[in-house]
Amino acid sequence: MLTTEIFKQVHDITHDEPAVDLNAGEFERVVRSRRSVRVFTDEKIPEEVMRKCLELALLAPNSSNLQPWEFYWVRDVKIKTELARLCLGQPAATTAQELVVCVARLDTWKRNCKLMVEMLESSNIPVPEPVMVYYKKVVPLAYGQGPFYLLGPIKKLIGSLVALTRPLPRGPVSKPDMRVWAHKSTALACENLMLSLRAFGFDSCPIEGLDPRRIQILLNLPRAAEVCMVISAGKRAPNGIYGRQLRFDNSLFVFEV
Amino acid sequence: MLTTEIFKQVHDITHDEPAVDLNAGEFERVVRSRRSVRVFTDEKIPEEVMRKCLELALLAPNSSNLQPWEFYWVRDVKIKTELARLCLGQPAATTAQELVVCVARLDTWKRNCKLMVEMLESSNIPVPEPVMVYYKKVVPLAYGQGPFYLLGPIKKLIGSLVALTRPLPRGPVSKPDMRVWAHKSTALACENLMLSLRAFGFDSCPIEGLDPRRIQILLNLPRAAEVCMVISAGKRAPNGIYGRQLRFDNSLFVFEV
Repeated sequence: MLTTEIFKQVHDITHDEPAVDLNAGEFERVVRSRRSVRVFTDEKIPEEVMRKCLELALLAPNSSNLQPWEFYWVRDVKIKTELARLCLGQPAATTAQELVVCVARLDTWKRNCKLMVEMLESSNIPVPEPVMVYYKKVVPLAYGQGPFYLLGPIKKLIGSLVALTRPLPRGPVSKPDMRVWAHKSTALACENLMLSLRAFGFDSCPIEGLDPRRIQILLNLPRAAEVCMVISAGKRAPNGIYGRQLRFDNSLFVFEV
Repeated sequence: MLTTEIFKQVHDITHDEPAVDLNAGEFERVVRSRRSVRVFTDEKIPEEVMRKCLELALLAPNSSNLQPWEFYWVRDVKIKTELARLCLGQPAATTAQELVVCVARLDTWKRNCKLMVEMLESSNIPVPEPVMVYYKKVVPLAYGQGPFYLLGPIKKLIGSLVALTRPLPRGPVSKPDMRVWAHKSTALACENLMLSLRAFGFDSCPIEGLDPRRIQILLNLPRAAEVCMVISAGKRAPNGIYGRQLRFDNSLFVFEV
């Protein structure tokens, strides 16, 4: 948390990945035609479409590439029926062809940080030293909270003192911070999943009106695996969209400063 | 929080919005070519592209359509330079053509709930009664936490008792819950923004290594306006991407149950 100098460096990079030309209008049609669909038809989603959309979800950017997400594609009929009930019996869940429980993990960053180090060390492309330092030293310091988050207040205190003199990230220094952190990256992937479903001709609904504790128990998940949302999917029924998309004036949300 | 029966109804809907056919391959190219770019070129992003991408960000799904997000497009050179410094001087910020501070608001849901009621009441399409009940009664009850979040523990207690017998959303019942809630929807919009930039031929980097408190002060934001991330944008420089996209095996993240 205190070693912020390494962020400032530009590295010598041999990797070349030129941008590809894209059809922006086609992308805009994906975004504009995505609606939260509350009633789905009986039409199935091909397995390979679901797999592809889940794969594209995992390509979302995420915090320090620690990938704190999990996606439970519930295919067992009994579990799926119970899951729909835990989504308060909403038609968006009960009529869905597929249900995916999107989970934010507060605890997998340690495993994933080790995997990053292994991946970087076994890479045949030279890895800049600050990147190795970042995963070996900065990440454990920044994300580690000690048992029962006891280190948090100490980190917060030291951070506050250091931050008196220079810019410094202030967290994560608590369980709430870790929750925000994990849900944020998971939501980025969720948006990929929903847009992907639309691009492949299907629809979705992000469901937050649900019983997260009962879903944890249903899927045998630990407390550190928090339900971010359930994404239901299928083809929109004619009565599946409740009205035109309602957005307030953009001037309430976008500011040029 | 206790009235979950209204979720179960399918409404009589006169709105018809058929799905449009889309080019899934083209969408996949947008997702796959989006990389976190750390160094940008001097090429400017046209104003109309920035405005369009911000507009598409606001079309992301969000919790109860309460749109708890704000986007500060920092155009003033002095503020922009200072903002890049508060992003720890990262090249992703210092070389960026544009910087957008993406903010999660914990407090605007009340205003937006009122706007929803006004919008629905002035609609010339009949609104199902449960939808009006939802915004007039359920939302204030579900999201209201009282002064200093004092209602939270009471809501939590009542909720826990009711949840003994039936599925029930357990929150939001605290400031941490409200934070997760607002950041989650904001992140959905952030992903739209980054994918939109890519679709229009530009690149981005989501920055979380920043000093959120100093950014609040710089933009004159209240405490309830939390920095979700800063999104920097521009054209990728040849040394702008640090290596091939590293993802761990999908089997660590996707489970079929």
